[in-house]
Amino acid sequence: MTIEAARPEAASSGPLPWHHRHLLDVDVLTRDDLELVMRTADEMRDVLARPIPKVPTLRGTSVTILFYEASTRTRVSFEVAAKNLSADVVNIAAASSSVSKGESLVDTVRTIEALGADMLVMRHSVSGAPYLAAEVFGGSVLNGGDGWHAHPSQALLDLYTLRGALPGGSLEGLKVVILGDALHSRVARSNVWTLTAMGADLWLCGPSTLLRGFDAWASRGAAGRRFTVTSDVDAALRDADVVMALRIQRERMASGLLPSLREYAARYGLTRERLRRAKPDVVVMHPGPMNEGVEIAADVATDPRSVITTQVTNGVAVRMALLYLLAGARDGGSGR
Amino acid sequence: MTIEAARPEAASSGPLPWHHRHLLDVDVLTRDDLELVMRTADEMRDVLARPIPKVPTLRGTSVTILFYEASTRTRVSFEVAAKNLSADVVNIAAASSSVSKGESLVDTVRTIEALGADMLVMRHSVSGAPYLAAEVFGGSVLNGGDGWHAHPSQALLDLYTLRGALPGGSLEGLKVVILGDALHSRVARSNVWTLTAMGADLWLCGPSTLLRGFDAWASRGAAGRRFTVTSDVDAALRDADVVMALRIQRERMASGLLPSLREYAARYGLTRERLRRAKPDVVVMHPGPMNEGVEIAADVATDPRSVITTQVTNGVAVRMALLYLLAGARDGGSGR
Amino acid sequence: MTIEAARPEAASSGPLPWHHRHLLDVDVLTRDDLELVMRTADEMRDVLARPIPKVPTLRGTSVTILFYEASTRTRVSFEVAAKNLSADVVNIAAASSSVSKGESLVDTVRTIEALGADMLVMRHSVSGAPYLAAEVFGGSVLNGGDGWHAHPSQALLDLYTLRGALPGGSLEGLKVVILGDALHSRVARSNVWTLTAMGADLWLCGPSTLLRGFDAWASRGAAGRRFTVTSDVDAALRDADVVMALRIQRERMASGLLPSLREYAARYGLTRERLRRAKPDVVVMHPGPMNEGVEIAADVATDPRSVITTQVTNGVAVRMALLYLLAGARDGGSGR
Repeated sequence: MTIEAARPEAASSGPLPWHHRHLLDVDVLTRDDLELVMRTADEMRDVLARPIPKVPTLRGTSVTILFYEASTRTRVSFEVAAKNLSADVVNIAAASSSVSKGESLVDTVRTIEALGADMLVMRHSVSGAPYLAAEVFGGSVLNGGDGWHAHPSQALLDLYTLRGALPGGSLEGLKVVILGDALHSRVARSNVWTLTAMGADLWLCGPSTLLRGFDAWASRGAAGRRFTVTSDVDAALRDADVVMALRIQRERMASGLLPSLREYAARYGLTRERLRRAKPDVVVMHPGPMNEGVEIAADVATDPRSVITTQVTNGVAVRMALLYLLAGARDGGSGR
Repeated sequence: MTIEAARPEAASSGPLPWHHRHLLDVDVLTRDDLELVMRTADEMRDVLARPIPKVPTLRGTSVTILFYEASTRTRVSFEVAAKNLSADVVNIAAASSSVSKGESLVDTVRTIEALGADMLVMRHSVSGAPYLAAEVFGGSVLNGGDGWHAHPSQALLDLYTLRGALPGGSLEGLKVVILGDALHSRVARSNVWTLTAMGADLWLCGPSTLLRGFDAWASRGAAGRRFTVTSDVDAALRDADVVMALRIQRERMASGLLPSLREYAARYGLTRERLRRAKPDVVVMHPGPMNEGVEIAADVATDPRSVITTQVTNGVAVRMALLYLLAGARDGGSGR
Repeated sequence: MTIEAARPEAASSGPLPWHHRHLLDVDVLTRDDLELVMRTADEMRDVLARPIPKVPTLRGTSVTILFYEASTRTRVSFEVAAKNLSADVVNIAAASSSVSKGESLVDTVRTIEALGADMLVMRHSVSGAPYLAAEVFGGSVLNGGDGWHAHPSQALLDLYTLRGALPGGSLEGLKVVILGDALHSRVARSNVWTLTAMGADLWLCGPSTLLRGFDAWASRGAAGRRFTVTSDVDAALRDADVVMALRIQRERMASGLLPSLREYAARYGLTRERLRRAKPDVVVMHPGPMNEGVEIAADVATDPRSVITTQVTNGVAVRMALLYLLAGARDGGSGR
């Protein structure tokens, strides 16, 4: 199978078994979908390993990256992914665009389509905004993060990274801890979904004010998913196979939900000391950008067991896979 | 005739009959010039319809897009147009560039030329700024909007859109209404010129405070052009063939020229109710970005008779045509 | 010798005699290094003179341009240089990126590398920041200006411009005056180094408050370099072969180091009157952006003896040379 061909799997096994025109959240992805993303990302890693990491797969496809919030890694990751597939990329930073004139999101999206965009990667501070965009956009919408709601490409790159980092590549029955401010975290919401879908024993740990709503979710215990919510960091980390620290956003303190950063670091920061409770070969993750010394100690971030930079590199491969799969679904004409 | 060749018309009929090195306003364009832009835009639409909408026409040409004001559609439209012609594009958002250090426009333009730019697309809040740029820039300057003065590419794409939308493609004798704040509108100024040049019976309608200066222009009645200025929205819309609503800029209210947005919407907003006075097959336009519910009702904007998104798509084709024609004039060495 | 080949000199004379992986400052460059940059820039000027000024030399190389300070000419110059060599370019304006979320420089640089960057061009307001970046970045770091410390590519393009402008191309024994605010100028610091290395009789002139520290440097008189510091503008300009005016930054006045701009202009501004003290064929330079009428009069800036726009054009050629040489050193695997 080669990614060079327009739709590689079509030749051998019929149409590509991917039916999603948009990627708005991970909650509509089946386990087969997740496996297909992983396998496609494997191929993209091979492309990235070449001296010239480019394929002509999306030549003539126009990708617009519309970000209403500041970003380095996600924006650049999508840009590099699209260019590696030979797509044309247009960047729009909404703060400096006419969006600042009060244009509605719907009007902006219609305009972007009329300008020729086939795919729209967007980040927005309002949860659900990409769903609105998908209703009016004729191509594919990829959610690059919406409010506190979802960050599907992050969850998929985290899943891909874990499969590479874990012996055997399986999450089945492994204890995975997400540590920190889950309440305001789209990364946490999307990861809870994919990680439990792949059979992980998921623990969410942080100050109780920052876990609101998750205990209800956990107690629903849908479809045999294992999901524990706790503020007891010792219990959470005990024998953990994976620990993912979440970014603490400094602006949360103003809301009174969080004590001082120093107190947070003392009680929940992922230090080497604290990490001793986990399994010796625990995998350490962080979606970035990090507040080193707050939610994660600098020596933990650079520990050999940390896969934080691997997450970033895999992000490019996974986003290449997503652009590729969605472009195929778009051409194939299937719905969302 | 094919756009692939460096100068397609040269082969069959001598030098390209286009003699403008810059595009600063529409007021220097003859009717033949306007027809040539339209015909060239037709070819560019054909290019846009291809699976890979690119031609190598401007390979090796460097286009710098220098915008001193926020913009999505015009900036991206020029960027996509230039890339479709295989030009190299450099974006400079002046607010985030060293222009913020107080560098003069002339110094900036000389620098951009020295950096290798062949063509300069610029938007500036000061009327006339592109004329100053054209005096020092060795290549071609395209005005992407200057103050209240001119927005020539917008007027040309509006003209192109109307020719496609009207039966027979002719404006001769048709009633065209521009509705709203003409005073602060470069779109209005440039459109008055081209639409009357093509024989339209032009009506400008809005609060009298926002029509200042236009009545003098209208009463000059130059060269048999038909041009009426009125605050009577019923008279203006009666039997109209085309209605173009202009963007109301919220900041105008501070100046006292405009009552509340609500009052403006009630008296001049383009509602479905009000549109009934126009011909049944009236063409509805708006240069964007829209304030839906103010100068145009949401259901009018998306009415089948609205060509607002067609305007955006045609904008890419018309700007491809302009870049192509100006590049030819530059190579041919003729003056402004 | 052709730049098209991956490493042109390798074919004829063994490995490229360039051993620097990074370009952080000019102070580690030997005279041989400087000569090699100059010769390579000559080749790049030849490339720029072609109808399509591009070579495939860096195809597959990813260059990230990370600027923490506003810039037009340096940022665009590096972007155009990299694109002319067929590299892929990613722009990150730090003010609008997640750097604004408080991410550390080290974390940002690790992320950029993990995203696939081979070369990192950076500007930072803190002196020494690129050294920190070079410690963690696996590829090549090019300093595009750090605080008051260094601006090596500017000094190299100034040197290259002088060699082209001076009869015989040699600086040996020529009187070169740098006029203005040296204290806050990375341009001055880097130029003092390269110009004295090439044998110039260097004079630094400005208000004594803006020369602090340089007299100590001058009095050390290292390795036979000639270097005079003075506030006497008449003595400095007398029989000068070259005068380089430095940008006065308006924000310096707030610190009390500088009187009014008017007084500065009166006492130190490079006027035609004042320039009469220099040699008749004096070469006038300015790194830009200029405050015309302050540190340099408008008629001096555009005088035939001014090479200010040549500096800008040469900047592209010199930066192409630097990217090319560093890419070779990186592939060759040698250290800093």
